[in-house]
Amino acid sequence: MEKETARLEAFSDGVFAIAITLLILEVRVPELHTAANRDLLAALGRLWPSFLAFVLSFFVILLIWINHHELFRMVQGVDRLLLFANGGLLLMVTFVPFPTAMLAHYLGTPAANTAVAFYCATFLVTSLFHNLLFESVAHDRRLLRHDISNQEIVRIRGNYHLGLAVYTISVIVALWSAVAGLAIAALLWLRWATLRYSAGRNRA
Amino acid sequence: MEKETARLEAFSDGVFAIAITLLILEVRVPELHTAANRDLLAALGRLWPSFLAFVLSFFVILLIWINHHELFRMVQGVDRLLLFANGGLLLMVTFVPFPTAMLAHYLGTPAANTAVAFYCATFLVTSLFHNLLFESVAHDRRLLRHDISNQEIVRIRGNYHLGLAVYTISVIVALWSAVAGLAIAALLWLRWATLRYSAGRNRA
Amino acid sequence: MEKETARLEAFSDGVFAIAITLLILEVRVPELHTAANRDLLAALGRLWPSFLAFVLSFFVILLIWINHHELFRMVQGVDRLLLFANGGLLLMVTFVPFPTAMLAHYLGTPAANTAVAFYCATFLVTSLFHNLLFESVAHDRRLLRHDISNQEIVRIRGNYHLGLAVYTISVIVALWSAVAGLAIAALLWLRWATLRYSAGRNRA
Amino acid sequence: MEKETARLEAFSDGVFAIAITLLILEVRVPELHTAANRDLLAALGRLWPSFLAFVLSFFVILLIWINHHELFRMVQGVDRLLLFANGGLLLMVTFVPFPTAMLAHYLGTPAANTAVAFYCATFLVTSLFHNLLFESVAHDRRLLRHDISNQEIVRIRGNYHLGLAVYTISVIVALWSAVAGLAIAALLWLRWATLRYSAGRNRA
Repeated sequence: MEKETARLEAFSDGVFAIAITLLILEVRVPELHTAANRDLLAALGRLWPSFLAFVLSFFVILLIWINHHELFRMVQGVDRLLLFANGGLLLMVTFVPFPTAMLAHYLGTPAANTAVAFYCATFLVTSLFHNLLFESVAHDRRLLRHDISNQEIVRIRGNYHLGLAVYTISVIVALWSAVAGLAIAALLWLRWATLRYSAGRNRA
Repeated sequence: MEKETARLEAFSDGVFAIAITLLILEVRVPELHTAANRDLLAALGRLWPSFLAFVLSFFVILLIWINHHELFRMVQGVDRLLLFANGGLLLMVTFVPFPTAMLAHYLGTPAANTAVAFYCATFLVTSLFHNLLFESVAHDRRLLRHDISNQEIVRIRGNYHLGLAVYTISVIVALWSAVAGLAIAALLWLRWATLRYSAGRNRA
Repeated sequence: MEKETARLEAFSDGVFAIAITLLILEVRVPELHTAANRDLLAALGRLWPSFLAFVLSFFVILLIWINHHELFRMVQGVDRLLLFANGGLLLMVTFVPFPTAMLAHYLGTPAANTAVAFYCATFLVTSLFHNLLFESVAHDRRLLRHDISNQEIVRIRGNYHLGLAVYTISVIVALWSAVAGLAIAALLWLRWATLRYSAGRNRA
Repeated sequence: MEKETARLEAFSDGVFAIAITLLILEVRVPELHTAANRDLLAALGRLWPSFLAFVLSFFVILLIWINHHELFRMVQGVDRLLLFANGGLLLMVTFVPFPTAMLAHYLGTPAANTAVAFYCATFLVTSLFHNLLFESVAHDRRLLRHDISNQEIVRIRGNYHLGLAVYTISVIVALWSAVAGLAIAALLWLRWATLRYSAGRNRA
């Protein structure tokens, strides 16, 4: 059964690596005709929403990958619910280039609220599948390895629930202020980036 | 010889993971100028055929991957016929983004029949190669592992034949009703999604 | 040192798998407005050069991959020449989508000679790097495993030289007749597809 | 802990392999209407900046990959700083297709200075993250394997600092002469291509 998990993880890792690398395809070179150096520099400057969206999505996918990785270290065995939840999570990860391109295109325009809300809603659905994946492993210790304590499960579940809550808030806030909505989600990502490794260290 | 199979599986997994992740490239961000939030929302709503085609193809490729994976667990050794059948199967998997984009573009237009029939025909040809791959292993137990019973082969072969039959019907029906054609294929996918894991559980 | 080869092979396999899957991105969905079913069917029919180029390049990359794989089974150790030759081969493999798209665009036009000659010339250069890679291993048995006989080396080298010769002829002939040039290269690919596995069987 | 490094390396390798293969997507087939053979040949000739940028970026990513690979052979364990530095390095590697496409588009135009400076600046930032990654391992021997001598660390650190210095110079020079800026960076790549393997040989 171990082998089963290995191939599922390798496949998932492949999808993460490809999705994260495809993000750049949405950043388009400004195609100026008879441009001087300063025109090209100015055009690069106007691309800031593309650069910002690219960097944000890169790091969020990286954080989800680290998260995914850590979750699978607790798993023994595979069942239909886990396969379905993992499939849904991968679906959302491959979807990310679309809301990223939309964020890049509409940030700084009057439609920024819709773009940011949609961007955060994408990660809200991702988070729902991540929660489902976690519960497919941890609920009643269905597929949990024996050396994982119940306290650790409670702590991790708390973090998953926090993610759901913050994403929900960020979607709602984005409808009133695009910048505030994005900032709320960014706080969550910062917290993850900080938390993540300490968890890893504890286990090592 | 085992090693040979391992590298073939890894290569195939790579192709599956990339094909499934490229699907999103065909979903294009609506490029509105001077758009208000409600315009962008409306434009997102009009993208429903793209979202539907994306989600469908994602899950069908995932199901084919699980299928492929399960088939290779029965294999000992590689020969020319298996390499050819596997190559044909991978060709069709990498082809999927094209009929998916066509489905997205023509669903809800008068040319939907052609788009759906072509979409289902793609999976019919995929299914033909999958049958050939299966028989390259199971026919006369050519490359079959010894611990796989003949009853199991009969059961699996029945499922493969069912796939061929349903895809053929879906192509024909799609010429009269695009929705009905797609619905018939969808029934097959639902059945697979349900079957799949029980088979895995039996073996584990 | 074995581990060194393993990671080089895994990286190369990744590049092969991605290049083969990117080919479909060059096949564009016909974007008709207010199309009836027969218009879309006709448009699909006019895409035959794209489908042909896609299938051809898919199988040629697959054959190069099998070839590459078989070559690495004879290798012990890595040196600078091998790394350079392998890098050159991978460069050409990642380049394939470009001449493929050009072939698809100009087949059946007056510029088909240039497109086919360029397509075959791409594989001629690929073949040069493949020869260099082979000699980086086999020349004076530099990095060759001890269990590979000199007769086997002579036989394989003959096949590599044949590839170089046929590609050179196909480029020259394509300048006079695009179809004849492509047919000559296709004969080589058919021969490879036939040869390949018998070689594998001998070794197994 | 070893396993942790293995999965991080595999993920990184995947990103390298994908980024290097995506480069070709930026080389666009000249779409001429009613073209004769000589028109297509001429159009191919005008594509030289695209071919040059493609080949350059291919080899630079390959060199960074070899570099990355060699660095990880010295590592024992993973910590937050290493994860962050590696993430930053991968971010820059996935970014490369953008400055490559810009270089291809503006080489030989009056805006070439900006394009080359931006291209070299991309690798300067890449180099900064590579230095950070190196120091996350080697500083105070934080995560360094015991069999790596201090002299070797001093020698490798020297090479990393040289990279930083040459890239900085190439960015500044490019503002005055695009060709000279690119040539300075090219000297560094040539040196790496030469150095690289001797280091590998010493260790083997």
